[in-house]
Amino acid sequence: MRIAVVAPSCTLKREAADAVQAMAAARGDCDLAIHPQCFLSDGHFAGPDDARLAALREVMADPALDAVWFARGGYGSNRIAQAAVVDLPDAARGKMYMGYSDAGFLLGAFHKAGLDVAWGPMPQDVVRDGGEAAVTRALDWMARREPASLEPDLRQPAMAFNLTVLSNLLGTPLEPDLAGVDLLIEEVSEHLYATDRTMFHLTSSPNVRKVARLRLGRVGDILPNDPDFGRDELSIIEDWCTRSGIAYGGRADIGHDAQNRVVPFGR
Amino acid sequence: MRIAVVAPSCTLKREAADAVQAMAAARGDCDLAIHPQCFLSDGHFAGPDDARLAALREVMADPALDAVWFARGGYGSNRIAQAAVVDLPDAARGKMYMGYSDAGFLLGAFHKAGLDVAWGPMPQDVVRDGGEAAVTRALDWMARREPASLEPDLRQPAMAFNLTVLSNLLGTPLEPDLAGVDLLIEEVSEHLYATDRTMFHLTSSPNVRKVARLRLGRVGDILPNDPDFGRDELSIIEDWCTRSGIAYGGRADIGHDAQNRVVPFGR
Repeated sequence: MRIAVVAPSCTLKREAADAVQAMAAARGDCDLAIHPQCFLSDGHFAGPDDARLAALREVMADPALDAVWFARGGYGSNRIAQAAVVDLPDAARGKMYMGYSDAGFLLGAFHKAGLDVAWGPMPQDVVRDGGEAAVTRALDWMARREPASLEPDLRQPAMAFNLTVLSNLLGTPLEPDLAGVDLLIEEVSEHLYATDRTMFHLTSSPNVRKVARLRLGRVGDILPNDPDFGRDELSIIEDWCTRSGIAYGGRADIGHDAQNRVVPFGR
Repeated sequence: MRIAVVAPSCTLKREAADAVQAMAAARGDCDLAIHPQCFLSDGHFAGPDDARLAALREVMADPALDAVWFARGGYGSNRIAQAAVVDLPDAARGKMYMGYSDAGFLLGAFHKAGLDVAWGPMPQDVVRDGGEAAVTRALDWMARREPASLEPDLRQPAMAFNLTVLSNLLGTPLEPDLAGVDLLIEEVSEHLYATDRTMFHLTSSPNVRKVARLRLGRVGDILPNDPDFGRDELSIIEDWCTRSGIAYGGRADIGHDAQNRVVPFGR
């Protein structure tokens, strides 16, 4: 199993790359090709749009690669996601694509284009407390479809998104068909008032209203609200599900943390 | 000119209410009826949804009132905006409704429902440095249609929104028809990466792509980006206008500040 790593959003830290490459080498069931584009820097991004897109298109088109692993999130993959799926090369199919957070723009667009995508931990996660377990979970899924890597309560077809990312891809060409989907969301580093507002936006969408159920992953690093918002993330999500007639399906084992699990999209 | 003040979002500060009431009394051309609901508090909001909606519906239905002035922004008007325009009482028409920021959810819904709305300063603005001038500008427009209160480069029909608010009302029942509109946006207290992401969302909308032009108000209190984002707000907006084929119409004299001008919606 040969896995390419590219960075469609922000720059990968060198120490994370080294640690993950050593982990992969020690396993014996996979080989990591970390693209030099991962270490480019252009303001917020891992290189200009053209460089990020070129690296992504290069690994998508390479028939010697079995998987493409997005290095980390941050912000920026939406700027190249639509161009990435134009005139797909044959070799782009039959590969797995994995990532989460900002990479959700790519997961949406790639799934819509018929590619095989999964929400899951990324190389940069290795620097988190307990991050080696997250990386192992991702590699276990990519290299040998290890069921223990999966979010434990999935019903197919499933999808997972960061809430803010999903809200920002609604109405864009990246928006996938959500009808009948087990939709898992999570959030990080937002005020609860903003989460409430984003849930208003999300649950007003006729496409989102077609999901089979909406499940809530972890809402981490909540920014302070002054005055206190007055309700927690669970009651916010339940409130908007009730208002919109969406079935709330309970908690989900995903989030911006080392416990984050794998969610393969579709069937 | 009798003007009601209600708070569909957050609680109005008592000292702001007192200052604005004194200003209105001293003018002689308007009388302010500050609804007691403005001082309610329920977590983040100026009272529960039911109380905020009831106060709003009450002043909308009162034939003795000539205008309804939203007390302040914050967050929360989206939670009651749709219910506010159901079965409109006759007295709701022929009134002016003014506010900005979070009140944009109401401006969108009310304009769509055929009511007479304007973006403009709110009572809470009086506590800003130079805030008396902002309040005077709003009262001058409501009481005597003073042209000096207007944003100086408007082409009719015009609309103005906070960027994040507009992004969150796209795809919801509150979204107005933007075809041919001189669309003014402004932003406050966001990271530039988030502004770039929101512009992606905004300019992907087929409705937004029908505007006559997009103009950029002030982007205030920008939160730090680490690393530096690498481009400023003007180049972000110009970039997304270019990508989406929207005409960029230059800067606009609106923002979360004491210089904020009035933008009446529509013709």
